[in-house]
Amino acid sequence: MDASIVGWGHTRFGRLEGETLESLIVGAAREALADAGIAAAQVDGIWLGNFNAGLVPDGFAASLALQADDDLRFKPATRCENACASGSAAIFAARNAIRAGEARVALVIGAEKMTHLATAEVAEALGHAGYAAQEAGLTFPAIFGRFAAAYFQKWGDRSAALAQIAAKNHRNALSNPLAQMRKDVGFAFCNTVSDKNPIVAAPLRLTDCSLVSDGAAALVLVADDMLGDFRRAVGFRAAAQVNDFLPMSRRDLTAFEGPAQAFRRAYAQAGITVHDLDFAEVHDCFTIAELMLYEAMGLAPPGQGARALDEGWVLKGGALPVNLSGGLKAKGHPVGATGVSMHVIAARQLVGEAGDMQRQDAALGCVFNMGGSGVANYCSILEARKAG
Amino acid sequence: MDASIVGWGHTRFGRLEGETLESLIVGAAREALADAGIAAAQVDGIWLGNFNAGLVPDGFAASLALQADDDLRFKPATRCENACASGSAAIFAARNAIRAGEARVALVIGAEKMTHLATAEVAEALGHAGYAAQEAGLTFPAIFGRFAAAYFQKWGDRSAALAQIAAKNHRNALSNPLAQMRKDVGFAFCNTVSDKNPIVAAPLRLTDCSLVSDGAAALVLVADDMLGDFRRAVGFRAAAQVNDFLPMSRRDLTAFEGPAQAFRRAYAQAGITVHDLDFAEVHDCFTIAELMLYEAMGLAPPGQGARALDEGWVLKGGALPVNLSGGLKAKGHPVGATGVSMHVIAARQLVGEAGDMQRQDAALGCVFNMGGSGVANYCSILEARKAG
Repeated sequence: MDASIVGWGHTRFGRLEGETLESLIVGAAREALADAGIAAAQVDGIWLGNFNAGLVPDGFAASLALQADDDLRFKPATRCENACASGSAAIFAARNAIRAGEARVALVIGAEKMTHLATAEVAEALGHAGYAAQEAGLTFPAIFGRFAAAYFQKWGDRSAALAQIAAKNHRNALSNPLAQMRKDVGFAFCNTVSDKNPIVAAPLRLTDCSLVSDGAAALVLVADDMLGDFRRAVGFRAAAQVNDFLPMSRRDLTAFEGPAQAFRRAYAQAGITVHDLDFAEVHDCFTIAELMLYEAMGLAPPGQGARALDEGWVLKGGALPVNLSGGLKAKGHPVGATGVSMHVIAARQLVGEAGDMQRQDAALGCVFNMGGSGVANYCSILEARKAG
Repeated sequence: MDASIVGWGHTRFGRLEGETLESLIVGAAREALADAGIAAAQVDGIWLGNFNAGLVPDGFAASLALQADDDLRFKPATRCENACASGSAAIFAARNAIRAGEARVALVIGAEKMTHLATAEVAEALGHAGYAAQEAGLTFPAIFGRFAAAYFQKWGDRSAALAQIAAKNHRNALSNPLAQMRKDVGFAFCNTVSDKNPIVAAPLRLTDCSLVSDGAAALVLVADDMLGDFRRAVGFRAAAQVNDFLPMSRRDLTAFEGPAQAFRRAYAQAGITVHDLDFAEVHDCFTIAELMLYEAMGLAPPGQGARALDEGWVLKGGALPVNLSGGLKAKGHPVGATGVSMHVIAARQLVGEAGDMQRQDAALGCVFNMGGSGVANYCSILEARKAG
């Protein structure tokens, strides 16, 4: 029996002074339980998505979730990690536990605390998501800079498309009260190298990079025979995970092969094509990633991802709006939280609770969460099982 | 449908010069696939147990497993972490995936690379498995020293029992060619504070502490309707996971409440008592842990764990030999590998392939793997489904 999402919590993303990894986890967990109307004693297991890799000293964080409620004592709690896709890793593991009959109620939390460190320290920690044997010292902006450079060399300069993506996601974040940056910075600013928008890792500019953020999101999954007890529920039409080789040297930098596989498998499971989707939240850790994901998801042939912008498909009001939440670019990217946040925001869309972000009559939504540069790829196709 | 273990690999544990986390993972994975007679292309998913927390720069290690074989490309791979129980976390997640129908063949690997660091650096990394907000800077010997001190204060000095445990496990390791230390150091040496056996964290002596080790272990799980294809198989009569509060200040240091819960739940699932077990591999990260586990597993009432030694129950040839492999104490403790190693060694016992470690006619075996000081607790009860 499958599992559905019946409640959620989501902290504001941003520089959250006074918060710790523990307080973020506890806050999101309590909010999700309250939203679902589930008592802590009913929870059968807890799954935590958290990357860490030196961001905080809490190297054994799963049991921090038990701090949310004394009734969580003696529940199983497990941390799942797949770099920036750790949140989805936790969701997929929790869903398996319910499908396995091991749990009927699962609490999933994704969390990360990052902003207390200097930028260089954050870059070093995130760099541990590279292939140490060949990529040591390479930051993630540098890694995605290589993807962008390779892509531009093969298909032509797409700096303007990247700026369109940044401007779109910043504009979308105006409708998301939980987003870290809520400012319509505009295409011209994003497309111009300036003191305020310098090159970070050629050809990527500052506006091509997502944010350093604190934050957490949580959700409650229950076995589908329990849905009568809940006012709304969002289920999985598909969920596919595809890992690719870790070394960049073993992958084509001009195409996202792992992500493309994940989308193909998810569409096949769901029995749909990309044109059946009403919205997507995808992993724009860098604008070049979102551009390449347009191709991986089948919106455009290789090298023509920019068409999705030029034709307006992925804009608010377009056929397949992408990152109505503001994306990692403007909503923020507390890495372990991101996958859970994406699922929470998609669930809100599907039950009509997305507020100003709402896509009218959203029936089928897609989440694509990625660890590393196309290495750990999670694609979920979600739909409402029960509307509010 | 449940899953069974049909093949395994296990590197030597110890100071393995020239090995990296990647080479350890790759070596154990290949050995397990070959032992099971499974081609990489048949694998549906990969689960990695690895703690890391600063031991190596590879913070995103799941996909390192794909380096074992090109045919593993595009398989899902996920890291599971629960400190020193990360190996069991990976096994439990993989088993759930098979029971969920998500996978039919799962490759599970546990690995850790530790000995390239100085002792103080290893202690610092392992210290990240404590509760940072209250226990920062406290090493694990110091943490278990507090347990031993509290236990001694309540029940009386048990230094001699701890020395008996150390001596037993060292002697047992003589029969395990993969063990890190194969030397019968003797009770007198373990029970005497000396230059070679100093107090590390009172009342614990050097011989009360497990080793710093490199190593990996791997196993292949398959859906039970595939067992006809394999020459031997070991299944789960029970598998229980119980997490306790992370802060030591919230737990009784004189009793292992979380571990006791895990044993009770596993016995109930299996429909057995402790007296039905033929052997156990338990988590002797420190000798005081093994002593307290005798009580948690129900061999003796609170405070009387030493009886298990005095009566000879847990010795080789006793009613319930504990740690015939040499345990973490002498086999070694590459932390992420340990849970997988325990399951591999138990499986070998149950199909009569444990070599000189073999317990005659072993039909029912217990594995208890622990993260932190009784925080993440995994108890498996295993039995042969098909003998070789």
